Parts: sequence; structure tokens; C-alpha cells
Amino acid sequence: MLYIPFDDARREMKRVLLTRGCPDDKAQKVSYELARNSLEGVYTHGINRFPRLVRNIDEGIVRLDVMPVKLHGFGAIENYDGQLGLGIVNAAFAMERCIDLAGTHGIGFVALRNTNHWLRAATYGDQACEAGMAAICFSNTMPNMPAWGAVDARIGNNPLTIAFPREGGHVIVDMAMSQFSYGALEKAQLAGQQMPIDAGFDSQGQLTRDPAQVIASKRLIPTGYWKGSALSFLLDIFAGCMSLGNTVAGIGRLPGDEHGLSQVFMAINYKKIDPDHLTGATLEDAVADLLRSTPDEHTERIVFPGQRRQEIKRKNLADGIPVDERIWAAVKALG
Amino acid sequence: MLYIPFDDARREMKRVLLTRGCPDDKAQKVSYELARNSLEGVYTHGINRFPRLVRNIDEGIVRLDVMPVKLHGFGAIENYDGQLGLGIVNAAFAMERCIDLAGTHGIGFVALRNTNHWLRAATYGDQACEAGMAAICFSNTMPNMPAWGAVDARIGNNPLTIAFPREGGHVIVDMAMSQFSYGALEKAQLAGQQMPIDAGFDSQGQLTRDPAQVIASKRLIPTGYWKGSALSFLLDIFAGCMSLGNTVAGIGRLPGDEHGLSQVFMAINYKKIDPDHLTGATLEDAVADLLRSTPDEHTERIVFPGQRRQEIKRKNLADGIPVDERIWAAVKALG
Repeated sequence: MLYIPFDDARREMKRVLLTRGCPDDKAQKVSYELARNSLEGVYTHGINRFPRLVRNIDEGIVRLDVMPVKLHGFGAIENYDGQLGLGIVNAAFAMERCIDLAGTHGIGFVALRNTNHWLRAATYGDQACEAGMAAICFSNTMPNMPAWGAVDARIGNNPLTIAFPREGGHVIVDMAMSQFSYGALEKAQLAGQQMPIDAGFDSQGQLTRDPAQVIASKRLIPTGYWKGSALSFLLDIFAGCMSLGNTVAGIGRLPGDEHGLSQVFMAINYKKIDPDHLTGATLEDAVADLLRSTPDEHTERIVFPGQRRQEIKRKNLADGIPVDERIWAAVKALG
Repeated sequence: MLYIPFDDARREMKRVLLTRGCPDDKAQKVSYELARNSLEGVYTHGINRFPRLVRNIDEGIVRLDVMPVKLHGFGAIENYDGQLGLGIVNAAFAMERCIDLAGTHGIGFVALRNTNHWLRAATYGDQACEAGMAAICFSNTMPNMPAWGAVDARIGNNPLTIAFPREGGHVIVDMAMSQFSYGALEKAQLAGQQMPIDAGFDSQGQLTRDPAQVIASKRLIPTGYWKGSALSFLLDIFAGCMSLGNTVAGIGRLPGDEHGLSQVFMAINYKKIDPDHLTGATLEDAVADLLRSTPDEHTERIVFPGQRRQEIKRKNLADGIPVDERIWAAVKALG
């Protein structure tokens, strides 16, 4: 394992993007966010994913020379065509637009079609929090999971983030609708480990913790079983229909690697309905109550959603970002 | 089992509410929605729950003579104090206000404090759909579940509904954040059955499908394990903070049965950003794709979220609503 300083990671990825003709401001933004994802411990959606992003650029399904174009708007709601631009750039644009709309209307709602993987959902929740607003954002994906009760993958794992600003660290949930990603299953398989809970079905339809069985059957389970399956479908409907874009079904009919996604962004300017500043104390009380939980037999301590990434960030800022030698070599070799 | 016609069920509950001095329009609304919940197969949140509602009225924690009072507003977002009124009446009021706001601003967002159990989340998603709008609504609850990794109940099962209108039946998810309710566990225990998947921890901290073990340990699991735990907390923060009301922690400090809840309602007037009416075809394509799923070994057919309730409604309209004799006798005896 190598330990790469944040700035080195960012600079190296920016260098590669510039070799593809990426405009400087976009290369700056994308390399910064990818490095930050790794810095905060979301390694799968940081540097590790960069070679795939570059491949998608080279394949022409991620375009460097476009920005979202407005389709329609009415008051606080708008939809945009992302023109298959960089997912991080498009999503940050959409959230910025939500924040502007929420400045005027109290809430902003943007649906975005024809966009690409935004990498990490929490990025855009965090963006709203930094502007003093709460946020809800979600994306659809290619079909990668069977609906509950089905064997063939027709729903997406459609990531969702919900974020609320907090002085001592924003409270943010960032969750995909599959209980485990293929990445997590493959990692456990390589390490010869079982998953801590049921991870999917084997080819006979029995729930199993064995990652190899689930990888073979391709029968991931939705988070919350039937509940996550239904939630995934509704998030997809919202994103695909309101953006006038692709649902998971439509994305599944596109050739090549995952692209042409639909996303929804909301920012809520809640401070405008809290003129006496009551929210902060309520939030601190709720966080404190959660942290007073008694840990169970398997757990050292209880954290609030978003707490761990702050701690990892501090550690990785001091020690460097842990990056697999082969991945770092692959990034260095791009150009 | 008795089979009670919808109108009889509604009339009997209305009669009881009137004996408590409930205004006629509220008695009409509450009895209609409770009967409809049973009609559509949500028995736990229909007639079965009516005796508890009447008890809560008699205890004075559900008040019949109040309506929500506006606290603050800015553009499309508003918050209200529900004054501990009837949960169904308050929630329908809040969603109606969202629909009005969305008529002007494209989206309406209402946070409601000091309210009571809304019975069935989908009711308010359905209300938006009937007005041609999409909706997201959620409520907090009393603390009834340990956070993931904890043994003591400090988070709520905070129900969530997401709804999108559809001519052939609205697409609606309605889910609480516990994988199973105590009601579902008790039903299985009485029937001597195991749950189909892990339902919680036993007192030694092992995952178990045995409802008796989970009831004894009080260690329900969140839907999606760590994911539902975090999602539950964020829904609570949104509802409690934005309504300037109670979070789950605050509700846990109130004496007596669950009351003083906080809720969030959103209606999205998405047709205003779909002037060419593209959404309907996209939605039908997504539903059709889902229904083409190949069922697994345990499943006869795949349905879309919201489909089953329509089918149960047709059956129960024809045959009457199945009601346990003892529950119906208890309702008849109220007065």
C-alpha cells in the first residue's frame, strides 16, 4: 500500500484529464472531488475509479466540452439535459442551481438527464450543507440488481443522499440500494471472507453470506429486501420521469458502459423558516442522544452518519491516502 | 373472521368519534381513511388501530378541536404546529398546503410539529397523486429501535412514502425503517412461525429469524441494517429540525403513549416541467420492464410498488374487509 498526499493525488489526476483536452476548471473540479473521496475513505469512488472514468472519456460516453442545458422551469423546479458531460461537473452544477432556486423560493428542485456517474452522492449533500442548506439527491444507475422476488437484474442500486448542515460536522447519509456492491463482494472473496450478513441469493435461491455464491448467481439483495427494491424503483421513476430522461430500463438498453443517467437534486433553505435559530440545539440534542447509545457485542462505539468520514479525513491528511500500488501505477501510466 | 362492508366500517368508526365530540367533518375524514387502510389491506393501520386512537383521544394526547397553525413561511416552504390534533387531519392539511404551494412554486414543502400518528404514510402520497403531483413524505416516531450496532432503542422506525401518479394505478412505496414491526413479529409468534429473513438480534447479539427472541431482546433491526439506521436518523433530523419540533429523542422524553411527532411533506408539480407530456410513456416503460422480471423460486409474480393494494381493494370491496371478531366487537363496544 502506498500513502499518497492529497495534493499529489489531485495533481496527478488533473494532469491525466488535461491530456484528454479537459478544460482546466473541470479538470480541477473532478480531480479535487475524486481525491477528496479517497481522502474521506470512499476509496471505491475516488482514485480507484479514475482509470474507468478516463476509459469512459476515451470511449466518448463522457464528454468534456459540454455543460447542462436547461429544458424547462417553473418556479422552484427545473430540468436539464446533461449532454453526457462529466458526472461530477454536471451534478455540482445542478446542486448549485438548486441552491440558487432555494435562495429565492426556499427550496430548489432540479432533475438532470443524460448525465454520468456522479461518483459519490454525499458530495452534493455536502455542497448544500456548505451553503447552509439541507439536501436530498439521488441518481439512477444501469440495471444491476433483481427486484425483490426476481432473478434478473432490472432495477438499479440508485444511490441516495440526505444531508443536514451541522457546525461540528454535517450529518449525511449516502447509501446505494444494494446491501453490498460487487466491489465489496469481490474484496471479501479475494480475502476469503464471508459477508457479516446475508448478501444475496445462491443459484438455488437460498440467502447466503458467501460472496462467491452471490457473484456467481448475480443475485444481489436490495437493502431492506422488498423495501429497498420498492424504494429503488421509486427513486428511478422520480429521476427518469422528471428529467424527461432514461429510467433504469432505458439505461439498460444503451450500448457500452453505464452512461445517460438521470438524477434529482433538492436543496432546502430551512433557515428561512427558523428565524429564531431553534434548529441547532434540536440537532445537537438528537446527535447527543444517538451517541449515548449502548454499543452491542460487535461494536466499539456508535457514530452519527457522516462522523467517520471526518475522522478518516484527518488521518489521511496526516498520513497520506492509502492507494494500492497497482492502481497508483495505472494512474501514473495514463497520459 | 368477519367480513365488514367498507361503508359499515366507516360508519361505525364515525359513530364512535362523534361520541367523543369530534367535529363531523373530521370524524368523516378519519373514519374514511381508517376504513380505506383496511380496505386496501393495511389492516394494522386501519380498523385494528382504531381502539388505540380512541384511547389516545380519551387520554387527551390527541385533540379534536384544533387545526395546524402556521409558524413561518418563505416561498415554497412553510412550517406548522399541529397542536396535537388528529394525525390524519393534520397530515392531510399539510399535504393540501404542499399541493397549493406547488401550484404556485412548482414544489411545496411543509414541516409539521406537535402532530400525531398519521396512520398510513401512503395516504398522503396518494393525495398528491390524485392532484397530479409526485410526493415525498416522512414522519418520526417514538424511539422504538436500536441504531445499528447499539442495543438500546434511540432511533425511530420513521415511515417514509414516495409516490408518483400513474393512470393505471399510482406507484407508491410506503415503508418504515424497521425491517419488521412488533405487530408483524407478534403475529408470527402467535402462529408459531419463523420470520422469512433475519428479524433482529437475540439477547446474545446473534441475528435470528425467531420472533420470540427479538420481542424478548427488543433488538429489532433497521431495514438495510446500517443503511436504514442512518436513513432513519436523517429523516428524523429533517422532520424534527425543520418543524422546530421534537426529534425522536424529544418524543422519547414525553410521558404516555406516542405523540408530539414531527413530519415533512413535499408535493412536486412535475407536469409544469413536462410541457410535451413525455413522462407517462417513460413511466409505463419502466413499470412494464419491472413486470417482465423472471420470478425467483419463492415468488409467483412480480408487482410494482402500489399494485397489490389495488387488487386487495377490489377484493375487499366485493367481499367485505376481513376483521377479527374481537377487534370488531371492541369497536362496536366503544361509545
